[in-house]
Amino acid sequence: MKALRKMKSGRGLSYESAAVPEIGPADVLVRVRAASICGTDLHIYGWDKWSQGRIKPPVTLGHEFCGVVERIGEDVAAVKPGDFVSAEMHVNCGHCHQCRLGEAHVCQNLHILGIDRDGAFAELVKIPAANIWKLDSSIPEHYAAILDPLGNAVHTVLAGPVAGRTVLVTGCGPIGLMAIAVARACGSSVIFATEVNEQRRAMAKKMGADVVVNPAEEDAVARILRETGGTGVDALLEMSGNVTAIHQGFAALRAGGRASLLGIPTEAVALDLVKDVIFKGATVQGIYGRRMYETWVQMTALLKAGRVNLEPLFGERVALSEFESAFAKLSGGHAGKILLYPNGMAG
Amino acid sequence: MKALRKMKSGRGLSYESAAVPEIGPADVLVRVRAASICGTDLHIYGWDKWSQGRIKPPVTLGHEFCGVVERIGEDVAAVKPGDFVSAEMHVNCGHCHQCRLGEAHVCQNLHILGIDRDGAFAELVKIPAANIWKLDSSIPEHYAAILDPLGNAVHTVLAGPVAGRTVLVTGCGPIGLMAIAVARACGSSVIFATEVNEQRRAMAKKMGADVVVNPAEEDAVARILRETGGTGVDALLEMSGNVTAIHQGFAALRAGGRASLLGIPTEAVALDLVKDVIFKGATVQGIYGRRMYETWVQMTALLKAGRVNLEPLFGERVALSEFESAFAKLSGGHAGKILLYPNGMAG
Amino acid sequence: MKALRKMKSGRGLSYESAAVPEIGPADVLVRVRAASICGTDLHIYGWDKWSQGRIKPPVTLGHEFCGVVERIGEDVAAVKPGDFVSAEMHVNCGHCHQCRLGEAHVCQNLHILGIDRDGAFAELVKIPAANIWKLDSSIPEHYAAILDPLGNAVHTVLAGPVAGRTVLVTGCGPIGLMAIAVARACGSSVIFATEVNEQRRAMAKKMGADVVVNPAEEDAVARILRETGGTGVDALLEMSGNVTAIHQGFAALRAGGRASLLGIPTEAVALDLVKDVIFKGATVQGIYGRRMYETWVQMTALLKAGRVNLEPLFGERVALSEFESAFAKLSGGHAGKILLYPNGMAG
Amino acid sequence: MKALRKMKSGRGLSYESAAVPEIGPADVLVRVRAASICGTDLHIYGWDKWSQGRIKPPVTLGHEFCGVVERIGEDVAAVKPGDFVSAEMHVNCGHCHQCRLGEAHVCQNLHILGIDRDGAFAELVKIPAANIWKLDSSIPEHYAAILDPLGNAVHTVLAGPVAGRTVLVTGCGPIGLMAIAVARACGSSVIFATEVNEQRRAMAKKMGADVVVNPAEEDAVARILRETGGTGVDALLEMSGNVTAIHQGFAALRAGGRASLLGIPTEAVALDLVKDVIFKGATVQGIYGRRMYETWVQMTALLKAGRVNLEPLFGERVALSEFESAFAKLSGGHAGKILLYPNGMAG
Repeated sequence: MKALRKMKSGRGLSYESAAVPEIGPADVLVRVRAASICGTDLHIYGWDKWSQGRIKPPVTLGHEFCGVVERIGEDVAAVKPGDFVSAEMHVNCGHCHQCRLGEAHVCQNLHILGIDRDGAFAELVKIPAANIWKLDSSIPEHYAAILDPLGNAVHTVLAGPVAGRTVLVTGCGPIGLMAIAVARACGSSVIFATEVNEQRRAMAKKMGADVVVNPAEEDAVARILRETGGTGVDALLEMSGNVTAIHQGFAALRAGGRASLLGIPTEAVALDLVKDVIFKGATVQGIYGRRMYETWVQMTALLKAGRVNLEPLFGERVALSEFESAFAKLSGGHAGKILLYPNGMAG
Repeated sequence: MKALRKMKSGRGLSYESAAVPEIGPADVLVRVRAASICGTDLHIYGWDKWSQGRIKPPVTLGHEFCGVVERIGEDVAAVKPGDFVSAEMHVNCGHCHQCRLGEAHVCQNLHILGIDRDGAFAELVKIPAANIWKLDSSIPEHYAAILDPLGNAVHTVLAGPVAGRTVLVTGCGPIGLMAIAVARACGSSVIFATEVNEQRRAMAKKMGADVVVNPAEEDAVARILRETGGTGVDALLEMSGNVTAIHQGFAALRAGGRASLLGIPTEAVALDLVKDVIFKGATVQGIYGRRMYETWVQMTALLKAGRVNLEPLFGERVALSEFESAFAKLSGGHAGKILLYPNGMAG
Repeated sequence: MKALRKMKSGRGLSYESAAVPEIGPADVLVRVRAASICGTDLHIYGWDKWSQGRIKPPVTLGHEFCGVVERIGEDVAAVKPGDFVSAEMHVNCGHCHQCRLGEAHVCQNLHILGIDRDGAFAELVKIPAANIWKLDSSIPEHYAAILDPLGNAVHTVLAGPVAGRTVLVTGCGPIGLMAIAVARACGSSVIFATEVNEQRRAMAKKMGADVVVNPAEEDAVARILRETGGTGVDALLEMSGNVTAIHQGFAALRAGGRASLLGIPTEAVALDLVKDVIFKGATVQGIYGRRMYETWVQMTALLKAGRVNLEPLFGERVALSEFESAFAKLSGGHAGKILLYPNGMAG
Repeated sequence: MKALRKMKSGRGLSYESAAVPEIGPADVLVRVRAASICGTDLHIYGWDKWSQGRIKPPVTLGHEFCGVVERIGEDVAAVKPGDFVSAEMHVNCGHCHQCRLGEAHVCQNLHILGIDRDGAFAELVKIPAANIWKLDSSIPEHYAAILDPLGNAVHTVLAGPVAGRTVLVTGCGPIGLMAIAVARACGSSVIFATEVNEQRRAMAKKMGADVVVNPAEEDAVARILRETGGTGVDALLEMSGNVTAIHQGFAALRAGGRASLLGIPTEAVALDLVKDVIFKGATVQGIYGRRMYETWVQMTALLKAGRVNLEPLFGERVALSEFESAFAKLSGGHAGKILLYPNGMAG
């Protein structure tokens, strides 16, 4: 079969022939319908410092996808060939303290398919049965291909109360944009968004943000405080990893509010803990991955019911072999998701 | 001034002259713009057994209303004359165990304006300042007049997780109908409703219910189990007080689900606790009043942001003096809310 | 090997030879050190109506036990031969709605070892690796043998806030007694207990109850209301399944309190939902099994740290072959736990 | 009457004559039995930068105390002269967003008695009736005098689950020491404490800490990880405000754990948000004051039931006029609480 792989240290990826994975008794082999490119994939392509420490070539990339079950191991009961599926690509151990407490998303022994083991930028991908997520046929294929980042957004939004609450999304990359749509669907009252990129600000509006601010041109904190009668927002959803945005987010957060941090800063962040956290009685949450599998239940229920409109996110679709153009476009700051098709693009 | 009062034991109400209330240093006098009739008012009109035990005539009825501040006591700082307001009519003591725990809605020493003391079916009503709820001018007057029952609905819906969850509303009176709209606004995935009255079923559809069942003609439990793949609903919102509906609701509730009970049965209910609660690991919540004042925050934020459409609920509007026609219509099973105007109906 | 089995319909059990279980790749074979008799085992011995509908002979009973790993399947990594273990005997499917939401204790496809499949009243027992619970060697063997019911108690006590809260335990069988000790260890302020059996009342005192009432001789509700200044208790832990106790428990529960129901009534219970649940704003929780595996984490951490003293519970210890005397004694109302030793009683 | 006051800018305090406070209709006048010195009082004595910005002399200090009601305003119903009381000295507005949400401890318009208005280092102190906390006569006077800092400790410990959980207390000043006792009373399994001061380490042991580490001599993080099997602690209770302790605390916190921050750093703290918060899925809570009044309910219930032993904390007791020796001793690093008696020291 064909796959998009990191074959050796250094910049770039290769579209290669690879062996069809052999599955064990508790595994599922999935024929990939559509996959999507994550920012992490760009880092691995570019071979940044993080990639150099983590990635052990050769490995097939890809952890956002959907497909159809091709074959199942002998102990697999929950799905059968022909089922339409996606998968949680974080594989947990099942027996550490966190797994036992229902916090498998922060398992002590996690490995990630498409990062630590072969992933879904391939015609076929092997997944442990426990990680397979069966999809209702009413969920569109292009939505099904991006459940991994949508799960990040849902995990962030629903990590605290949102109905009848004001929300600030700092950073309108794909996950920030999805968080806007999810917060809107889940009853957030006023949704603020900050973003310096003009194309992304326009998309934030389309996704349902009520007030979109360009912090390079306007004092975002002053604006948000003014629009909330001086109180600040009930919830900060930090999606940028940008130090300035983090500081602005905390400054705009009301006393007693929650700050849910998903964006990844590239260095340590100096926080005024007294003013921004302690005297404020704030709650700061680190958000990692998706809750296994509460987030998947919530997310697919919302999609099946048609409560979340993600159409503005989708743009180009290309055959997997044409990956170079997609990676180039995303590296250049393209705001939406680009879908890759390893098995041809006919519906 | 004029007021609608219970003057003595027995059926009926009187449209009477009454003294303008004298206010103390911590009170607010409000000129009523619009008021709404609650089922409780019908019980008092009809002088049922509960009314005979609770009501001490003479008393002015009315606990659903909005108005404009006319005068404030000398210690009142939070509102001023001219402010557009509604009020929580449950007056709590502030120092019992429940008040100290932030559960003022079940205060041990509650009294209710419009039931235990003079209420809002009058040109002017006296309210303790702590109970006044200042309204944003963007909230329409007719919505503002029904915040009391809308608060019941919001309290019920948001008493547990609802985003990405299936919900069953049993009983589509005004509060059930509002609960449908609120659940929809807050991300419920599939909303089921059961109701025997045809007019109310039609309104349930308009409010956003996905599946509306007439349990007199169809096996409601079988239908709901079928539509949820045999699992049952995540949440039961019981709004009817009807024993059959309660039993059906529990039968349709999934293991691990929550049942939030607001409807008032008129007698003891025999429950199969083992099957419906214990082995199911279910959570059953008694819902009373509105959380003071978290529910008010949520509710008015949702309204201000335009997230909840209640238009189908509203029908007739009459001057307070024409109350008899309104009470007659509601006693006959009219499905929506009827508004009363003590100070004239000009906007 | 030898095992205690239900061989056919009707009263009684047999101490029989049985084949050593064959284990699959994800199974663990455990040599049983000590086991304990549950009320359910008494029902199966007596062949009551529930047993007749559920039990399919032949089957080996026993679901409370500890032992030492004898052999592991080829895919098992979390334990090794020689490890001291107990196990959660409720086996869940892993893929139903509840399992995916982290509510495996109410899995739609549960089966129970010692009820639906062969259990631990045997020299050796086969357990799925995911259900094995590795024990710290500092936990005494007799405590390790009763983790299943202790888990029921911990699940009930910690199903809501307990630190600085008053608690009422209705029914002081083994689980009620353990709940008293757990509530005490977890900061409950005043612990009330009701129980008609004199021996059990004495044990309730030893376990840490502050006020123990015999409801056959004293008005338990009046007493509890008096001792709580008229407020009632913050939490009801219902352990009896007795209708009178349930009614008394609800009457003694404060407005806004929680009622956690574990005891199994034998018939439908007529509840005054308005007075006891709805107007009270109470939360009623069905408690089933143990949370998988949060309860196990909490319980074994408490035991390892020596925070819970269960010594008063333990009485007789007999070889498995001497089961008849143990079953007779427990059927006669013996208050403590009796341990069975399938592999001899030498430490 | 006599009072301990800040009369003007600059170092020091004065023991002065002052007018007896006049009370309004909703106020209570309390005769102070015993008061206690907070670290904040030391800062005001020393006239540090924070004091210079906040304190407006003349003002009577003192916000930790107990006493007996001397006189009540005409609208006060909840207490009467002769009642034994303490008080929450943070006075909230009652109508801001936070007050309406039940988060009065982070009210937008807080003022603090003993800081912004006259406090309890005086023979008599005026308190708004809503802030008075009536005490059971079984609570000892010296315990009653330190409910303010004990409330900080209870608020911190009970801000998340603690029963059956491991806890790390960084910093064993008075509040850290109290947190150890409270965590112990509420079922914490293993309690770790770090502290450089030898006297305080000895007290930590007496209060119930299981493992006490001197981070100046031992690698505290390595030790805690070793003792928790590499997992880290479930909860960090940060009581020091020390940057090194904060970093160690986060390093010792398990993935998915909670960090509750009460200690006040004197400058911004550089945090590795990715490693310590985001990838860890940690929850960081700013802890300010005491929950009004849930913390007071929990704290006084624990004390009344005798669940928390604070005796090791108490040392010297002096007449208010002898304040200089007490302030000198505490500035020198004395580990316990010193009580002041404005009305004489006879019991």
